[in-house]
Amino acid sequence: MTNLVNRRQFTIEWSHCDPAGIVFNSRFFEFFDWGTWTLFEAALGVKPHELAAVFGIVGLPLVDSAARFLAPARFGDRVELTSQVSEFRRSSFDVDHRLMVGGELAVEGRETRVWAGRDQSDPMRMKAQAIPADVIARFQCR
Amino acid sequence: MTNLVNRRQFTIEWSHCDPAGIVFNSRFFEFFDWGTWTLFEAALGVKPHELAAVFGIVGLPLVDSAARFLAPARFGDRVELTSQVSEFRRSSFDVDHRLMVGGELAVEGRETRVWAGRDQSDPMRMKAQAIPADVIARFQCR
Amino acid sequence: MTNLVNRRQFTIEWSHCDPAGIVFNSRFFEFFDWGTWTLFEAALGVKPHELAAVFGIVGLPLVDSAARFLAPARFGDRVELTSQVSEFRRSSFDVDHRLMVGGELAVEGRETRVWAGRDQSDPMRMKAQAIPADVIARFQCR
Amino acid sequence: MTNLVNRRQFTIEWSHCDPAGIVFNSRFFEFFDWGTWTLFEAALGVKPHELAAVFGIVGLPLVDSAARFLAPARFGDRVELTSQVSEFRRSSFDVDHRLMVGGELAVEGRETRVWAGRDQSDPMRMKAQAIPADVIARFQCR
Repeated sequence: MTNLVNRRQFTIEWSHCDPAGIVFNSRFFEFFDWGTWTLFEAALGVKPHELAAVFGIVGLPLVDSAARFLAPARFGDRVELTSQVSEFRRSSFDVDHRLMVGGELAVEGRETRVWAGRDQSDPMRMKAQAIPADVIARFQCR
Repeated sequence: MTNLVNRRQFTIEWSHCDPAGIVFNSRFFEFFDWGTWTLFEAALGVKPHELAAVFGIVGLPLVDSAARFLAPARFGDRVELTSQVSEFRRSSFDVDHRLMVGGELAVEGRETRVWAGRDQSDPMRMKAQAIPADVIARFQCR
Repeated sequence: MTNLVNRRQFTIEWSHCDPAGIVFNSRFFEFFDWGTWTLFEAALGVKPHELAAVFGIVGLPLVDSAARFLAPARFGDRVELTSQVSEFRRSSFDVDHRLMVGGELAVEGRETRVWAGRDQSDPMRMKAQAIPADVIARFQCR
Repeated sequence: MTNLVNRRQFTIEWSHCDPAGIVFNSRFFEFFDWGTWTLFEAALGVKPHELAAVFGIVGLPLVDSAARFLAPARFGDRVELTSQVSEFRRSSFDVDHRLMVGGELAVEGRETRVWAGRDQSDPMRMKAQAIPADVIARFQCR
């Protein structure tokens, strides 16, 4: 578990909500994506859209995603999303997301992503690459 | 595992895709939602927006959702989504979703939902209710 | 033209963008909706989700919307959305939206919305109502 | 006014709707985009994702968009979207969209798009190009 935690606060919009008056489930996965990009920016000091170029990768494709919905979030709710890498492996990693509404945990999620470069033998394809040790180190605060 | 399988075919739209040229992950969860409503319509012969009224429930709130992304889906791809209840429990159930692109499995997902009525002691809240046996029976084809 | 201008700054997310790498057009209409709610909160000091109850209306349904796309907004762009009521009429009003990217106007939009209450003769329907003078006055800064 | 009209029928999904229980406005602009791609496929016999390559363009960027919302569309509504080019100019064109719910016009929209190629003097930029006469002719049925 790395200890750099990114916090992002925002307000639930009308457009996020469904006829039940609560955030539609797919929106949370969009929020998780926001959280991961912001966490990487906080850790690496690189703007999200420059991440690929700076680190010589193609992107951070998602291979697995999951969420538990414990309580609803509603229009006008002020929420806090915390995002943290729970595990780095050789070429993939897990990001844990927690969305708090009024101090209570409403949604928890996990994304598994790959540190992906271009496949040398087929430039149209991506290939998992070893995550540099100095990248991993940046997710650890002293 | 019930054996009624709902099949839904559609085309990946430009608006579904992200800068990598592939369907953005949160869209698949939206597709899963489409699949569940369509499956229930196929099983119960009731229009989705009439489901709550016909069965005296408030809705089918999602409590857990997960997906594995095995291969990308791209703009213009003709895809098939199959949806099937893999397990009915007392008041909750799992729906398995499989999205095929060109005959290959691209995404597999699972939703856990609750058969939820209004809480008698607090009408603003929902409460899990026992799923009627005749509802469950309709997901089984002879 | 009222002179209260609401400014909202945010960052363009990966999920906002399409395969051309720029914000997909429908997202701007979602941003306009955000802008209108925030403007009303700034003017009236009422949380968006409490607006209807406080003013005895059902909502602010949109009847007309338009946008001109002058320049693209891209992933990672820091943008500023300004929103301002350009005209109040008896029961409807126009909100002008301007989205700036790097100090340049990228998108301009206009929404026409109605101050809508419940129709007394048919509670399932909405009916345009006269906008209270003291509501209009709050969009004017001295 | 060209006379090729593309018709596309679909069902309003739960995920399309907002807390008022009706389709959120930005979704209609997404539907219009679907309609334009499908119209071009019907006219030109080319899959949307192959359009750029086949005609040597970069895309059909949207420069202007507008909609009038006459009646709501709700979850479960079966709708028909008709799309038609109302005018071709030298390098731009207008697409008119009409969304019918239960035989009644619910939303009408117009998109203005550009036939855009790569700018020879700056390959990172797009440049409006003359629309080939044989492209325009394909939007006219005998």
